[in-house]
Amino acid sequence: VIARAAETGRRSRVCSEHFGNLRYQRVTDKLGDLPRGTCMFGETVIWGYPSIGRILRLESGLREQFCAPLWVEEKMDGYNVRICQVAGRVLALTRGGFVCPFTLDRLADLMDLRILDEHPELVVCAEVAGPENPYLHGHPPRVAEDVALFVFDLMRRGMPGYLPQREKLALIERYGLPAAPVLGHFQPTEWRRIGEILQQLNASGGEGVVLKEDSARSHRAKYVTSNSSISDIRLTIQSIKQLPPEYFINRVLRLVLFLDEQQISRDRALAEGLGDAFLDGLFSAIEQVKHEHRVYERYRCRFRDRRNAERLLRRIRAGDRHIQVVQRSLERVGDYYVLEFDKVLPNMTGLLGHVMSGGLVYD
Amino acid sequence: VIARAAETGRRSRVCSEHFGNLRYQRVTDKLGDLPRGTCMFGETVIWGYPSIGRILRLESGLREQFCAPLWVEEKMDGYNVRICQVAGRVLALTRGGFVCPFTLDRLADLMDLRILDEHPELVVCAEVAGPENPYLHGHPPRVAEDVALFVFDLMRRGMPGYLPQREKLALIERYGLPAAPVLGHFQPTEWRRIGEILQQLNASGGEGVVLKEDSARSHRAKYVTSNSSISDIRLTIQSIKQLPPEYFINRVLRLVLFLDEQQISRDRALAEGLGDAFLDGLFSAIEQVKHEHRVYERYRCRFRDRRNAERLLRRIRAGDRHIQVVQRSLERVGDYYVLEFDKVLPNMTGLLGHVMSGGLVYD
Repeated sequence: VIARAAETGRRSRVCSEHFGNLRYQRVTDKLGDLPRGTCMFGETVIWGYPSIGRILRLESGLREQFCAPLWVEEKMDGYNVRICQVAGRVLALTRGGFVCPFTLDRLADLMDLRILDEHPELVVCAEVAGPENPYLHGHPPRVAEDVALFVFDLMRRGMPGYLPQREKLALIERYGLPAAPVLGHFQPTEWRRIGEILQQLNASGGEGVVLKEDSARSHRAKYVTSNSSISDIRLTIQSIKQLPPEYFINRVLRLVLFLDEQQISRDRALAEGLGDAFLDGLFSAIEQVKHEHRVYERYRCRFRDRRNAERLLRRIRAGDRHIQVVQRSLERVGDYYVLEFDKVLPNMTGLLGHVMSGGLVYD
Repeated sequence: VIARAAETGRRSRVCSEHFGNLRYQRVTDKLGDLPRGTCMFGETVIWGYPSIGRILRLESGLREQFCAPLWVEEKMDGYNVRICQVAGRVLALTRGGFVCPFTLDRLADLMDLRILDEHPELVVCAEVAGPENPYLHGHPPRVAEDVALFVFDLMRRGMPGYLPQREKLALIERYGLPAAPVLGHFQPTEWRRIGEILQQLNASGGEGVVLKEDSARSHRAKYVTSNSSISDIRLTIQSIKQLPPEYFINRVLRLVLFLDEQQISRDRALAEGLGDAFLDGLFSAIEQVKHEHRVYERYRCRFRDRRNAERLLRRIRAGDRHIQVVQRSLERVGDYYVLEFDKVLPNMTGLLGHVMSGGLVYD
């Protein structure tokens, strides 16, 4: 019985998916060395993008985590995709291992795909970021409309790990790929210089950095600005009932540790900004319940092919049973089909509906 | 096997306790009709104080929850005790059903105990509140030092439910007991008048109200002010890792629903106050870790009998394995022994220690 339970447990971490007539297996939860999002197309394995730990202090974090010089790259606030060729066909896989109909539709707009023609064994790891993406609110200030793509790593099909940084940069340059900005190469002791970069990013609305050790083990860590923590709270507070409850507290803690180490003085504007980050979305959720009887987030994104908009909505509906997706419009605007849709947040809708109509809560 | 598991499950919700040579059974978790904190001293049962649901909206909450006039009583911000006589001995039981050595030590200072001599069948339900209590930070502004006791209900030994409000008030008057202020008697439709009371409490630092239906079923609900939610966040943020993670989000939600219904305008001071409630304690926790390598809360309280101070520390240590208690001082001051102690918060100490020394976190 125990053996069978273990087997069942293991089997349930891999599930069958299809995209059109392409069938594959997707790892839904870390399975031994295989990260979540690893995809198996027959004999071709596309490894999942590994999860990267976070430091909350720069001086001690650099000292403890790195034993060689490191590259500092800007962390772009978007969603992670792996772009690769499987059976002669280009795919764009989300972190979780789904084929993303939106990314795929727009891929030719976002990057030159020659790299995959000439190196079909490569997997391009990139962040797609911008105000018109179908997955998340929040985007880098420099992407003022639509979306842009930023390559930050290259992997090889069938292999874990990344190409060395210099090899990656040479390929990015050769194929003219858009890339996450490389902000410098530093010794682990140079926390003050890296701190200055973070302060600039904090002032200009950047999310933070990914630190990549310049060594064979290619160890990584991420570190984010205080303003990005406030921005996260502001943009996701309506989803509180869908997110792990620690989500908000972790961000307040990051914020405080960043400000303390960077010696950024606490002023009224900071406290006010943090307070408003909590208040704005909740007041707006109350208005939504009063006037529309539901709490939702609105998304907008553009497609080349109308059918991909429909595929995307099916994909989002299938991916999270907690979220109800309502299409608002799908209209031709210039060269694109512009899709607008709402993600209804049923847990928050339910809770606010209950308490606003006079229900009791126990806590 | 299932039957035994169920039996074990049931048995584990009752546990044996002793206080001196007094042995009793304590219900650790709701068990059928018996609330948590119910205590069985041989044949004498002292029912636990029932948990009371909360409304987050006044107009709809009054309409939905009450079908008769209701009393509005001020909710005092302290800890709940049941004071009763068992085998000729006066006891003070906490919400969870432990005998509280602090309350017991100070009981003669806090209330006239004649009521139990003349009515040994009564159980006095009261809040002990003030800056010098050993359990929680936060207290009613009117209790400027030490602690005070506020009777809010009377029960009978061996019986669930409360004495009717008028009978309770008559006994409180007859025995000159300190009581939670009764703020009025209203129809469920009078939400605007009750709202005015809440606005006054909000301005003067009151916690909120308990609404008690004037009927045989004696249905209750509580409703608290926005400022008490901010104050809760401020006073407990250091304990975030010990509290349920929803604790903070629930309070922000209560706050927003209160302000919206009471039409209190959102100003800069409000956002700033909420932001600071999150920031103050976390900045102070960072300082504690930097200088003392641990995060703690400091408590101070006074005793008549020195041995009760020692009993209290043993009680707190036994009650929560997550909390380490460090006695700082126990000194005679006037008629009292003044105890100062710290509750070290190991989860927060561990987390901050880890990240401040450069550790990685995954989320």
